[in-house]
Amino acid sequence: MSVKTILLAHGSSDLNWSRTFEELAAPALARHNSSELAFMELSKPSLEDKVKEAKDQGAEKVLVLPLFLAEGRHLRKDVPAMLAEYEERYGIKTSLLPPIGKHPKLSEALADIVSDMIP
Amino acid sequence: MSVKTILLAHGSSDLNWSRTFEELAAPALARHNSSELAFMELSKPSLEDKVKEAKDQGAEKVLVLPLFLAEGRHLRKDVPAMLAEYEERYGIKTSLLPPIGKHPKLSEALADIVSDMIP
Repeated sequence: MSVKTILLAHGSSDLNWSRTFEELAAPALARHNSSELAFMELSKPSLEDKVKEAKDQGAEKVLVLPLFLAEGRHLRKDVPAMLAEYEERYGIKTSLLPPIGKHPKLSEALADIVSDMIP
Repeated sequence: MSVKTILLAHGSSDLNWSRTFEELAAPALARHNSSELAFMELSKPSLEDKVKEAKDQGAEKVLVLPLFLAEGRHLRKDVPAMLAEYEERYGIKTSLLPPIGKHPKLSEALADIVSDMIP
C-alpha cells in the first residue's frame, strides 16, 4: 500500500514560527522523501493541502505525526475531526499517531540537550 | 556560581498533559539533579514555585529551558515578563534559553522517530 507521512505542526501568523518547524523537520524530510510538513491552522501548507496532494499522487493512506509535545484539545478533538472530513472528501485513509513528545527518543534527546547546557 | 535549571512546559487543566511532560523530562531530571520541571500556567509546580525554591536552596542563577517546539507570544513576552518579576521579587538571576525545538538534537531525534514509523 502506498503510504505518505505528514508531520503536522500547529501554525501561527508569525513567519518565524513556521520557519522553526521547517528547520526542525528538515533532517526528517531529507531522509524520507515520502514525508511532508503541514500545519493545522494559520500557516501554509495546510493539512488539507497535503492530504489532497497525497491522494493526487496515488497514496492510499496518510500517517499523521503530530509535532506537538503533548495531547490537548487539538489532538483529541480538532485534528481527528479534520481527518474524518478529509477521509470522506478525498477517499483516502488516515491514521493519527501519538505526538512526538511521547516518544522515548525525544526524552533521550532532551536529556542530551540539558547535558549540553549544564556546564 | 550555583545554578539551577528549570525545564519549563506550558500547563493544562488536564492531568494527562502534565503527566506527558513528567515522562518526557524524566531522563533529563534523572541525569541532572540540579534540574527541575515547572509549568508556566494551570499545572503545578509553577515557574514561580521553582524559582523561589532555587533561591531558598542557595542558587544564584536559574536557567530556564522551554519545553516548547517554537517561540510564540508566551516565550517572546509572557515568560520574560514573569522572569523579570521573579528576579526582582526573589533577588536571583534568570536566563531564558531558546526552546528545545530549535536544538539540532531535537531535529535528529525527529528524523529517527520518522525512521521508526515508516516501514
